[in-house]
Amino acid sequence: MGVSVRIKTALETSSWIRRMFEEGAELKARLGPERVFDFTLGNPDVEPPARFKEELIAAAQDPRPGLHVYMSNAGLPEVRRLLAQHLSRLHQMSFQTDDIILTCGAAGGLNVLLKALLDPADEVVFFAPYFPEYHFYTDNHGGVPRVVETDEAFQLDLNRLEAVLSPRTRAVIINSPNNPTGRIYDAETLKELGKFLTHHSGRHGRPVYLLADEPYRRLVYDGLTLPSIFAAYPNTLLATSFSKDLSIPGERVGYVAVSPRAAGRGELSAGAVLANRILGFVNAPALMQRVVARLLEVSVDISPYAQRRDLFCDLLTQAGYDFLKPQGAFYLFPKAPGGDDLAFVSRLKEENILAVPGRGFGRPGYFRLAFCVPEAVIQAAAPGFTRAIRG
Amino acid sequence: MGVSVRIKTALETSSWIRRMFEEGAELKARLGPERVFDFTLGNPDVEPPARFKEELIAAAQDPRPGLHVYMSNAGLPEVRRLLAQHLSRLHQMSFQTDDIILTCGAAGGLNVLLKALLDPADEVVFFAPYFPEYHFYTDNHGGVPRVVETDEAFQLDLNRLEAVLSPRTRAVIINSPNNPTGRIYDAETLKELGKFLTHHSGRHGRPVYLLADEPYRRLVYDGLTLPSIFAAYPNTLLATSFSKDLSIPGERVGYVAVSPRAAGRGELSAGAVLANRILGFVNAPALMQRVVARLLEVSVDISPYAQRRDLFCDLLTQAGYDFLKPQGAFYLFPKAPGGDDLAFVSRLKEENILAVPGRGFGRPGYFRLAFCVPEAVIQAAAPGFTRAIRG
Repeated sequence: MGVSVRIKTALETSSWIRRMFEEGAELKARLGPERVFDFTLGNPDVEPPARFKEELIAAAQDPRPGLHVYMSNAGLPEVRRLLAQHLSRLHQMSFQTDDIILTCGAAGGLNVLLKALLDPADEVVFFAPYFPEYHFYTDNHGGVPRVVETDEAFQLDLNRLEAVLSPRTRAVIINSPNNPTGRIYDAETLKELGKFLTHHSGRHGRPVYLLADEPYRRLVYDGLTLPSIFAAYPNTLLATSFSKDLSIPGERVGYVAVSPRAAGRGELSAGAVLANRILGFVNAPALMQRVVARLLEVSVDISPYAQRRDLFCDLLTQAGYDFLKPQGAFYLFPKAPGGDDLAFVSRLKEENILAVPGRGFGRPGYFRLAFCVPEAVIQAAAPGFTRAIRG
Repeated sequence: MGVSVRIKTALETSSWIRRMFEEGAELKARLGPERVFDFTLGNPDVEPPARFKEELIAAAQDPRPGLHVYMSNAGLPEVRRLLAQHLSRLHQMSFQTDDIILTCGAAGGLNVLLKALLDPADEVVFFAPYFPEYHFYTDNHGGVPRVVETDEAFQLDLNRLEAVLSPRTRAVIINSPNNPTGRIYDAETLKELGKFLTHHSGRHGRPVYLLADEPYRRLVYDGLTLPSIFAAYPNTLLATSFSKDLSIPGERVGYVAVSPRAAGRGELSAGAVLANRILGFVNAPALMQRVVARLLEVSVDISPYAQRRDLFCDLLTQAGYDFLKPQGAFYLFPKAPGGDDLAFVSRLKEENILAVPGRGFGRPGYFRLAFCVPEAVIQAAAPGFTRAIRG
């Protein structure tokens, strides 16, 4: 009656994350929230750094006129200039102001990039397990999703990638540190991927763009650092945000960066600016642009996440779960005991534990646990995890 | 090389407003900005009300934890509840929290609604002269634009509307007070339109939704008030923002409201919430949601706009221009002397006056002047307007 067929279907199937969220809300209403162990949502619960609050208050008190009006659809020039400098230092490459477009988070950024890139029936490749929204983002702009399985360690398999690349491949999305697996792609992997895409682009005379979705870049553990994706491949476009760095996902501020070495560099950034306008974003929120510009080198303290990871991994290991320790982000992606992720997630629910089945991320037989919750919740859920694996 | 064919075409043709903006920037760089009279952009230059600043500082200083994290994609429940109450009072109709979705401005809201509504090849009707972005917004979601001319007084002509309505008509967009004409549709007109759409919907067994784009609702002059669009037609969906009410267009906060009487009410709001998520908006900026919720009855002082309107109208009348005095918004849309809007806008440019040709709004032979500029600029441009009309 009301909505389109496509949206109606999407509403009915929706995402597993949301469905779990709703079932969880029902459980919480029934039992009281303190008796439900909810590991479904990747919503940062670590407070923003103290400097964020200071800069926010300063920006709110700023007496200058005209601070809240329209600007270039690309964002405030001074903020873009600072971001270009920041990326130039980080990647040892010369980014210019025009390479940067402020966006409504990384989600806005990915949509802006796909809108700028895709002709009807162009193909977008991403790797399973994947962030489920990639399906929607691709479909939004007339693209066709092509999913490539990663290996048992969730690493890229270039043979499988080769099997799906076609003359219509327009973009490949990678996400490292990865949601839901917590894995990082190392420099060697990215270099191989870059060589591979260069070869494929050359063969078809049309660049394949690598879309790097990096909102978790600074959320890495054990002293690891993320290799530069821009160094690995010239036709790289970055989408990222301040959501996890500063624990401000509700404020919707992030940015897109076009590699200085990308084919069609100027046209790509102009296209992204236009897409930002015509998709209705218009520009990233003005006040928050000013705030984050003063915090480019600031991050939340990630030690609470690291401690929870260690605690959670110890508990799950003791209980007998099979998983890879996350190198970054705040998710665990264990194998579902018994092999059926839906059945096992239901079993966990009997223990008042909420998790998301792996099929929601394109990998049945696994389940995702978000550990952006207090340690006490993880501790309290331990007996339930132990009982659940015993059947 | 880089962008899609569609975006490349859009970049080349782009919008007249932007093109004028860029030519204007070049002129300003050459002559100095104080010697150029720029009437191209509808960017409010009246400062936000004092209360906005107070509430912004209070919100920034709010010590509660968790203020900047993800929320329901529909927005903060308390803000939605207050908006539902506000609309219930304004329209004498019972809006519920679930009827309201906070969006990234009215532009975000219109995209969310069209995404929720349109199946491929569904048609979207709007009236010329129109806000040029409607073409993009319709195309973004696979819709087909159908333009209907208004009459000489820029009023709706239902006979012309009837000629374009089809079984594929899914939505009709109206914008009152209108950009670019400054006209308002009166209660009788809206009632007739509502009857007409009810009849058409009934004939095809499928509701046509009326999308009311009302960002200028409070920007009306001469003591006029805007009639309720919800009273005029049951299948009405509102998209609006706080951009003009509070002079904060750069902050990207607005909302969508589904009529309590709309067919498929619950499905429509659920679809709009899903669209808000999957288009990458995710949610309207959290901090600004809290700020605007405390300012629902507050507006900028519109007397500066009213004074500029009177001044501008007097000057143009004395110079011999033919136009209708705007009833709302901050635009004048005079006839181009000689009939050729491109030629006349070029002639104005020789006088260092920047305006937008009417064909950018689907009505050649006219030109648009935005009067959100200081009175001194209007005064200083007067001799140029006089010389230009003399040839």
